[in-house]
Amino acid sequence: MAAQTDYLKIKYVAIDTDPENTVFLSRQCTVYRPEEFRALKKIEVSAGTKKLLATLVVTDDHTITAPDELGVGAPAFRRLGLAEGASVQIAQATPPRSLDAVRRKIGGEVMSAEDIKAIITDVATHRYSPMEIAAYLIASASFTTTDELLATTRAMAESGTEIKWNAPLIVDKHCIGGIPGNRTSMIVAPIVAAHGLKMPKTSSRAITSPSGTADTMEVLANVALSIDDMKRVVGLENACLAWGGHVNLSPADDVLITVERPLAIDTREQMVASILSKKLAAGSTHIVLDIPVGPTAKVRSQGDAVRLRKLMEYVSAEIGLVIDVVFTDGAQPVGRGVGPVLEARDVMAVLTNQPDAPADLRARSLLLAGRVLDFDPALRGGAGRVRAQELLDSGEALAAMERIIEAQGRAASPACAGELTAEIVATCDGVVGAMDCFRIARIARLAGAPTDKGAGIDLFKKIGDHARKGDPLYRIHSCFASDFEFAKAMAHEDSGVMVDGTAVRGSIKE
Amino acid sequence: MAAQTDYLKIKYVAIDTDPENTVFLSRQCTVYRPEEFRALKKIEVSAGTKKLLATLVVTDDHTITAPDELGVGAPAFRRLGLAEGASVQIAQATPPRSLDAVRRKIGGEVMSAEDIKAIITDVATHRYSPMEIAAYLIASASFTTTDELLATTRAMAESGTEIKWNAPLIVDKHCIGGIPGNRTSMIVAPIVAAHGLKMPKTSSRAITSPSGTADTMEVLANVALSIDDMKRVVGLENACLAWGGHVNLSPADDVLITVERPLAIDTREQMVASILSKKLAAGSTHIVLDIPVGPTAKVRSQGDAVRLRKLMEYVSAEIGLVIDVVFTDGAQPVGRGVGPVLEARDVMAVLTNQPDAPADLRARSLLLAGRVLDFDPALRGGAGRVRAQELLDSGEALAAMERIIEAQGRAASPACAGELTAEIVATCDGVVGAMDCFRIARIARLAGAPTDKGAGIDLFKKIGDHARKGDPLYRIHSCFASDFEFAKAMAHEDSGVMVDGTAVRGSIKE
Repeated sequence: MAAQTDYLKIKYVAIDTDPENTVFLSRQCTVYRPEEFRALKKIEVSAGTKKLLATLVVTDDHTITAPDELGVGAPAFRRLGLAEGASVQIAQATPPRSLDAVRRKIGGEVMSAEDIKAIITDVATHRYSPMEIAAYLIASASFTTTDELLATTRAMAESGTEIKWNAPLIVDKHCIGGIPGNRTSMIVAPIVAAHGLKMPKTSSRAITSPSGTADTMEVLANVALSIDDMKRVVGLENACLAWGGHVNLSPADDVLITVERPLAIDTREQMVASILSKKLAAGSTHIVLDIPVGPTAKVRSQGDAVRLRKLMEYVSAEIGLVIDVVFTDGAQPVGRGVGPVLEARDVMAVLTNQPDAPADLRARSLLLAGRVLDFDPALRGGAGRVRAQELLDSGEALAAMERIIEAQGRAASPACAGELTAEIVATCDGVVGAMDCFRIARIARLAGAPTDKGAGIDLFKKIGDHARKGDPLYRIHSCFASDFEFAKAMAHEDSGVMVDGTAVRGSIKE
Repeated sequence: MAAQTDYLKIKYVAIDTDPENTVFLSRQCTVYRPEEFRALKKIEVSAGTKKLLATLVVTDDHTITAPDELGVGAPAFRRLGLAEGASVQIAQATPPRSLDAVRRKIGGEVMSAEDIKAIITDVATHRYSPMEIAAYLIASASFTTTDELLATTRAMAESGTEIKWNAPLIVDKHCIGGIPGNRTSMIVAPIVAAHGLKMPKTSSRAITSPSGTADTMEVLANVALSIDDMKRVVGLENACLAWGGHVNLSPADDVLITVERPLAIDTREQMVASILSKKLAAGSTHIVLDIPVGPTAKVRSQGDAVRLRKLMEYVSAEIGLVIDVVFTDGAQPVGRGVGPVLEARDVMAVLTNQPDAPADLRARSLLLAGRVLDFDPALRGGAGRVRAQELLDSGEALAAMERIIEAQGRAASPACAGELTAEIVATCDGVVGAMDCFRIARIARLAGAPTDKGAGIDLFKKIGDHARKGDPLYRIHSCFASDFEFAKAMAHEDSGVMVDGTAVRGSIKE
């Protein structure tokens, strides 16, 4: 019915509202009247068969968007893939039909697998606004049946790329996160590769933490691998350490997380669906899952850990994944460094068997690598741990890591630790009694990690160590003065370290 | 701790993201690094003691925001109240503390009155993002205790202006909405005023409907009254018909509604809190509440109507309001016109006692005015209805309306009905059996109402009327060709009127 004269010319607007699509319409628009589109705010932009949902914003500035134009913000412009000046039409977007299922869920009903499939598909294709995603997440957080959880995990795995491997045994190792410096994957993968199992590891970048495995690996090598790159590297070297965001595994999860994080929604069910959907999409068959338990970790009690383990085991079995859940000590950071460069230094110290390499990072990596190797039917039961240590001590794991780095593409010149430094020192004699993982992560992040590879924290004392008044507990590294000031201010207020039963406060040495 | 050099100059950006505050930072910013602010996205802008929360958007266009500037979108610029070039600082906003209560609510806990007060205050001051509002609303939609509802109603009333009147009896009449053309307030208010009770009526503008009482009254008079204007008009004429949005009653409700509407969250509890908080803030003491019941109305069964009535009565009693709930026929639109000009014509036809004035609008207005007059202790019980008719028939109500219009400020030149017209005609002989309020409202809205005062629908047949094939059922009025096409297309697909048991489709005469 629409007249043929209702076309707008698209214009690129250099405004980044990622991950949301935003378009701009002039209040003096000659083709449409912006008031018509205010109530719902989401509009559908179409050019032939190409369609895109976007949030409409009205502008009074003709240099941003002229009356005969549709301004298109950076993410929408990228997704639309049209040249400036191309003709498009706009219409009020009909809300996604799957929202009806969300409304029924809010009303207390259970969702069918078809409902969930439709919701997850709409979420992955950016048809839901943040408030609609929040509605779905909160309704699900109040109760989720195991059938709903299974359907969610499957739908999320199917929402993006699904990698197929020509091998019966594809192993993986995953940690639920929350412990700074816990970079065991970068040691486990080369050990497993050296043994001969296939471990195509994908990892995330940090969202709220000071570094993700992908950020730390990037200090040493290129991590933005395509699926073909991954297959080539794994074909050559048995393992890779790639950034998962680049290969579009479970994209629905990437969208959901943009709402889960700010709302701090962190249910067992969402964690299970998020982790297992990505493993399923990555083509894994056997997984070792590391659940750190500690007072400032994500899982804070043994009871919670067991409940999470049972749910992981149940869903894994239903979707055909073999899982081995390992509880580890989540009381403090692992290793010494927190932040990409400092963590990469620790990893290489372990792989090169340096005498001062962090013992806890080494021990934990061997434990997890051993459990992964135990999946190998050729090994005697329980022999994985010893085999892992052989491969590490002999330098075979290091050689595997060097080959993986070469195959992925070695980083041109390694980044260095940030040159602005300050030390937090003990204010009394005593034993280090506790470390707040969450606070230490925040200080490292304020210092600039992971944006600045060299920023972060270098720990000199760990729980159980003796400290004398004036002994440095850790050093902050920053690359920029403003970050440095923010990090110091937070560490000054509370360092996150307890000595002799008291939080160390107000003690910075520059 | 922050250095004294971290100031940005503010620059007005003519982008309207109302009701949300948006600010723009250059990716090449020389003072802050935008990456630092991405994770949370909400930032706090401060200039001395002035503080404002806003969503941060990154731009690559120096003409929008230069590297030493902070671009400030229209709503934030208005709220900040500073001149361009003024110096501001920015910092990651700490999420509102009251979100902890929302998280506890999601976890199944009951909120205290203090929790609710803190949440509503933060919502009213724009500290919540849409996703955070959605989280609060959905968590509340799954269960709300009566104590929570009471605390919510009180907190919402206290979130903005509270009007005080020097009179023991301040009456009001309110309809829960959903029925096109239901403009009884514009007849009830002058009747009540002519009798001598005080009725300071505030009404909303349409959000998703084709007209609100404020939109229709605006055809005749200025409705953007300040509190002082309202007091002056009511002092002179006993009643006013003002736009509530202008006097900031229950502003938290105005924010919540921006999320409730798109999510179609419509619980009894939210309706009760929304309506009664506004009445409490407006200083009303006695209210007649009109609940239309019908298959396409907001309340669709007698059971639902009774549950809503009881909840309204309970909360009213607790907060000290006298309420009289009236169930009315919500099966079809009231009167003939749908849209501001056409509705105003119907209202004036009733007030001037024209023989062809819509009988249903007249009867319903007399019913409701009678119930309001029954609040007058000076009248014999049940005498209100007769008294209302006397005042209408004698022309005293019309005279009161003319004085109210003069006191508010008569509209300069009355708008006319839109000149683009098309008629929907019956496609067979038969009786009009049903009318879809929701669909008729949507067609009228597409035709341009309420933005174009003259746009809308003029109904010629109502339920029970006989129609012969070719008889016009209603006429669409538009002011712009594109709206006209959209409205006709929708009416063509399904007119929203049933004749002889079948929906009338595909029959338009121009």
